[in-house]
Amino acid sequence: MPSKVNLDSALATFAEHWVPRTVAELNDYDVRIAKLHGEFVWHSHPETDELFLVLSGRLRIEFREGAVELGPRELYVVPKGVEHRPVADEEVHLLLVEPSATVNTGTAGGARTVPRRHL
Amino acid sequence: MPSKVNLDSALATFAEHWVPRTVAELNDYDVRIAKLHGEFVWHSHPETDELFLVLSGRLRIEFREGAVELGPRELYVVPKGVEHRPVADEEVHLLLVEPSATVNTGTAGGARTVPRRHL
Repeated sequence: MPSKVNLDSALATFAEHWVPRTVAELNDYDVRIAKLHGEFVWHSHPETDELFLVLSGRLRIEFREGAVELGPRELYVVPKGVEHRPVADEEVHLLLVEPSATVNTGTAGGARTVPRRHL
Repeated sequence: MPSKVNLDSALATFAEHWVPRTVAELNDYDVRIAKLHGEFVWHSHPETDELFLVLSGRLRIEFREGAVELGPRELYVVPKGVEHRPVADEEVHLLLVEPSATVNTGTAGGARTVPRRHL
């Protein structure tokens, strides 16, 4: 049987920004946590939606037209194929749910791409 | 494009216990919120894992052997096929992620079964 995950304890184990940690698995989906600060790259995931739930801080998800701003206990599902860019003007603690094969930079690739990583 | 979901605003729209509301969809999965109080029925979901994230209160998930106790910002994935019974000695506000076809009572059925319901 799996163990429970305390999100605050899990968040306390790392400080890096933009490197999600998988803390649990749900069928072929990952539950990931991440710390964000600054601007990420424009990217999209043509094969999947992506769930963002803000745990602390304020996250802006920019789209080519418009943006959504999320505070603590607010969630948003970015639809598959929609280009987006997460921006955190202050540090954000985030929970993500997405298929385990999902790459952080989607099809954009580049230097900000990181491999799937368990806590 | 979907709208963002503020979990506290969404929770404020209903009072019933044990009737999950779908607040967002992620591919063929639902993000659901529920209020719990008291004991639920023993059941299992042979076809899927189930993610529980406690938003407030303390939830005990009993298994035929053992139990896990979750407080706020703690999560647990009940593996597919594992019999479990959620028990909330005090009111619990919960977030669930599971395939959209998942029925709250699994294969147990009975009077506590409710249809899929959007907020």
